[in-house]
Formats: sequence, C-alpha cells, structure tokens
Amino acid sequence: MDFPDIAAFDAALATLPAADEAAIEAARARQGQLTKPPGSLGRLEEIALFMAGWQGRAVPRIDHGRAVVFAGNHGVAAQGVSAFPPAVTAQMVANFEAGGAAINALSGSAGLALKVVPLALDRPTQDFTTAPAMSEAECLDALSAGAAAVEPGLDLLVLGEMGIANSTAAAALAARSFGGSALDWVGPGTGVTGAALMHKAAVIGRAIAVHADAPLTPFETLRRVGGREIAAIAGAVIAARHRRVPVLLDGFICCAAVAPLAAAVPAITAHCLAGHRSAEPGHGRLLDRLGLAPLLMLDMRLGEGSGAAVAAGIVRAALAAHAQMATFAEAGVASSGA
Amino acid sequence: MDFPDIAAFDAALATLPAADEAAIEAARARQGQLTKPPGSLGRLEEIALFMAGWQGRAVPRIDHGRAVVFAGNHGVAAQGVSAFPPAVTAQMVANFEAGGAAINALSGSAGLALKVVPLALDRPTQDFTTAPAMSEAECLDALSAGAAAVEPGLDLLVLGEMGIANSTAAAALAARSFGGSALDWVGPGTGVTGAALMHKAAVIGRAIAVHADAPLTPFETLRRVGGREIAAIAGAVIAARHRRVPVLLDGFICCAAVAPLAAAVPAITAHCLAGHRSAEPGHGRLLDRLGLAPLLMLDMRLGEGSGAAVAAGIVRAALAAHAQMATFAEAGVASSGA
Repeated sequence: MDFPDIAAFDAALATLPAADEAAIEAARARQGQLTKPPGSLGRLEEIALFMAGWQGRAVPRIDHGRAVVFAGNHGVAAQGVSAFPPAVTAQMVANFEAGGAAINALSGSAGLALKVVPLALDRPTQDFTTAPAMSEAECLDALSAGAAAVEPGLDLLVLGEMGIANSTAAAALAARSFGGSALDWVGPGTGVTGAALMHKAAVIGRAIAVHADAPLTPFETLRRVGGREIAAIAGAVIAARHRRVPVLLDGFICCAAVAPLAAAVPAITAHCLAGHRSAEPGHGRLLDRLGLAPLLMLDMRLGEGSGAAVAAGIVRAALAAHAQMATFAEAGVASSGA
Repeated sequence: MDFPDIAAFDAALATLPAADEAAIEAARARQGQLTKPPGSLGRLEEIALFMAGWQGRAVPRIDHGRAVVFAGNHGVAAQGVSAFPPAVTAQMVANFEAGGAAINALSGSAGLALKVVPLALDRPTQDFTTAPAMSEAECLDALSAGAAAVEPGLDLLVLGEMGIANSTAAAALAARSFGGSALDWVGPGTGVTGAALMHKAAVIGRAIAVHADAPLTPFETLRRVGGREIAAIAGAVIAARHRRVPVLLDGFICCAAVAPLAAAVPAITAHCLAGHRSAEPGHGRLLDRLGLAPLLMLDMRLGEGSGAAVAAGIVRAALAAHAQMATFAEAGVASSGA
C-alpha cells in the first residue's frame, strides 16, 4: 500500500476492513473451555480475542512481530522547545542501528525484530509556527514510507518514533484533532519544565492559531503540524489495518499521530492496542479520545516504541495462555461445583 | 532455612537483612549514563535498582528465575464458600504437573522454571470457623516447606497458590492483620456472587469472631485462619529475604499470606514487588497496607502466580534495558542541550 495522492489516502481511510468475527467467536469459545474460572485472566483474555480477530485465526500467534521506529527532524525545534539539540535525532538513529538504545533492548526482550526508518533527517520540516510543516508531496512520501514498513506476514506491529521537538508537534496535533488549548496538551517531553514549558505552550499556541483556518482533515492536520515520522506512523496504522496486522501504539507522540485519523474515522483504532499510558500529562486524555485503555502504566516517557515493546510481552503472555492451556475436559478438572 | 519452632520463625522475622546500598548506587549511576532522558524509563528504572539491591550487583540479571505454586486444602470449604468443589485443588495440581494450567503457559512465557508444591492435600486444614486451621506443628511444617522452595542461586522468585476456599482464608488474614470487617475484605474469589457472597462474608465474620481473643502475632494469625499453602508463601518470603532473592507477589491470597508478617514487621515487603493488582476488590487496599504499588492492573483474578508471572516479563524488560543500553559516551549522543 502507498499513498500517491491525497485521494488515495482518503480512500484508504474510508475503506477500513473489520475484524474476523468468526475467529473472535472461536477464540471466545476456546477461552470458555480453558482450566480457569471464566474471565479470570481478565485483559489477557480480551487480548487473545483481539489478536484472533485481526489475525483471523482462533489461536493467534506472534511468529513475525516487529517494532518500527520512525525518525524525523522538526523545524519547530529552532523555537527552543526541547531539552535536547536537534542533532540528537540522528545520533539516536545511529544508536538504534548500533543496538544501544532502549528500544533495542526492549524489542529484543519481547522477541520483536526492530526496523529503524530515518526520514530525511538532513531536511527538517518547516517551522509550523510560520508555515505548514510539510508540502503535500512530502507528507504523502512520509505516509507511504510508513505504509512500506508494514510488510505482508507480520503478525504484530509495534510503532515508535524519535524526533527532537516532536512532543510539540504532538500537542498541536491533539489540539487540532480533539480541541482544547495548548495548555491542555503541552507536557515536558524529554524534560522541559518551568518557564521553558510555558514557552513551549506558547509555541504550540502559535501553531494552532496559524493553522486555525486550514481544513480540519486528517491529511491537512498531519501535513501542517505533524512531521515525517508522525505521518509515517499514521501511514503504517492505515496500512496495518488493510493488512489486518494488529498494532501496539506507544506513547503521546505515537498516539497523536493517530489522532487526526481518529477524529475523522473513530474506527481506525479498532486494530490498535495502547501499549501504555506514559507520564506525559496529555497522554491519558488522548487515549480516552482514541477509545483505548492502556495495558501498562509504568511512568515511562521515552518514546521510541519503548512502552509498546514492553507491552508486547503482555500480548505474548496472553497468547501463550490462550494457546497452551488445557481445557477442562483435557485436564479432567471439574468446571464448577454447581 | 527452616522453622523447627515458633522461636525460629520469630527470630527469622526479627533479623531481616537490608538491600545492598552500594549495588543500588552503582545501578543508579549506570542509569544516569544510559542514552535516554533521565528517569524516562519510569518504573523500569526503579525495578533495575530494586533488583540490583537484592541481588547485590550493579547489573542484575535473571538466569535462574522460578515460579512456585503452593497448594493446600481448606476445611472451611465445607461451609460452601467457593464456586468450585474441593476436589479441584488436586485436579489443578495434576494440571500444573501436566503443563496445562495458566501458570505453566505464563511462567514459560516469562522464562521461569515452575515448581509445584502440594501440601497434604488429603488432609484439609480444620474449618477455622470452629477451630484453628492448623496445629503449631502443621503450621511450622508448612512454613518450612515454603522456605525449602527457595534454593540457593535463585535470582527471582514468583509466588503463587492454589486452594479451593483460600480467598476466604485470605480475607480473614487481612482482617486480623490490618483490621476491618469481613465485608471490607470479602470478594468473589473464583466467582462467588450475590447471596453466596453474603454467605461467604458471614463465614469470614464467624472466623474473625472465633479467633478474636487469640494473640495477634504473625504465627498465630497464619495458624488460625491461614492454610498450608498460605503459610508456605509466608515461609518462602522470609527465606527469600534471608537469601536476598527478590520476590514477585501475585494476587489477593498471596499478599494476604504476607499480611500477618507485615502487620508486625512492615519492612518484610522491602524485597517484594507486587506483580499486579487483581480484580478481587480487597487487593488494592491490601497492597496499600503492604506499601506496594502493583506493576500491572489487567483485571486478572486467577491466582496460581499468574499475575506475578506476567509481571516477571516486565522485570526482564527492565533488566534488559539496564544491562544492554549504551551510555551517552559509548554512543556519541549529546546528553542535553543545556
């Protein structure tokens, strides 16, 4: 799947496939036979059914799980909204490629292959306090790059990002998608506090104001106040849906990439799980608007897909129980005292 | 370690070793150098320090992690407090041994060896609404069986239980340890609701009343309203502390086994992590009284160590990040823009 033009993007978003209800019912029937009180595995049971529905099989599995980290640079970084200099984006991409970052360790721990997709790091987006972050062509290219990361055969996709200043973009995306002011969505990101945080909020407020009259379409919001790695996540989410690949979303920025899509088409998150709720203050509210309940709340706030990668271990556990447990009949266990 | 008499038990509880502060400081220093904003891995960083302190090394690891499920039968089951018949305890032990239960799948998913310890299943404890559940010798034997499951060389211990009617015992343990009425601590367990739940509360209330004048010591509480698998968990927690083995506690019953110890010696939980908060209504309050914040909240309510086993995957992820990530200097990444 790719997005040669805006019409292709809009069409992809308008034709989302549904989960396989027969597979969900078969998985539900299996859960009811396993040697445990009904419902006693809680969300692990829900995860098994979710995975069954998107993989289209009663006993889902993760043979080809992948984490993808998209990276981009942001013109708005020039406004001094981050605790780190923009050069860190490329330095961290090198760190991902060398195996030294958190996402390397965490995706490895979860048995996921890791793919790193740097997007034109030498060409930051425009500063969106004065102009759209991307041209239409640039935004389409980023969406397509995201879609291209969703190869056939994947059975779980963990999405993450790296981009100095991208929590500023995320706050603007959330505000344009779901309303609210800059102060409703601003947060410390990598560690901006005090007066610097108020400055960051002011920058976000300017971005919201500058683009206030632009069409509130998913594409225009992504193009105007997003970024390449953010558009790539949006493209990957759409492509995964069309390939029926279940997705684990990460933190505030990853979810903000989905926000413009969900504001127009709420069902876009049906194939997504929220890996965690991060420490970024707006993330919980954003998850509520996306209709997602986080699997983990561990006060993480790193990005890179790190929280979603940890949550992938929960998904693996859920599928292990679903696949490996004996039924009451197989084990010769009484299923109730009634 | 074993408990030949009550004095040995009391002495073990009175002489708890502390964590290795030097290892914690070395781990903290390492965390500060890893390629991420300070603190951005949240509780994963805390877990790494916790594990460092109890394992006594700056880079802790899990080479020999073990889940232990203790099983026991309860005389109080005759009062009709469970949705399942008492025969299910032995049937589930057979299921554990055959590899078909949730804890088999979940401990396997977390890379933990599983040990099953059935405790005199053919001799249920006394019905504690009329007599102490165990004689002193029986309680000491169960405590020692728990301690014996903590062999040298373990680097993580997941504790779980199986025993029809043991959520009734757990509620009585919590009430004797931390106060409150039967209604404050009763819950559905494997699935008791409505009038049956009110009956269960009444049974718990009778147990509390019958033993109200007995000494409020850890030993007497475990002996009077506990059970063999519950005393074994208490013994394992104490033995793990003396061997400096970090412990992952499971749900309401597992935590209730620690409650009598913690009521007398709050520091007993210092080497413990709460794997999860279960759906059992009293568990959150019990965790508060134990001073523990759960790693997971997935609405699980199965026991067997299942929630703690899932949480072991979080601990593994935390240690993977701690051990494998590059430092800023190693990766050539700028550590801040200041």
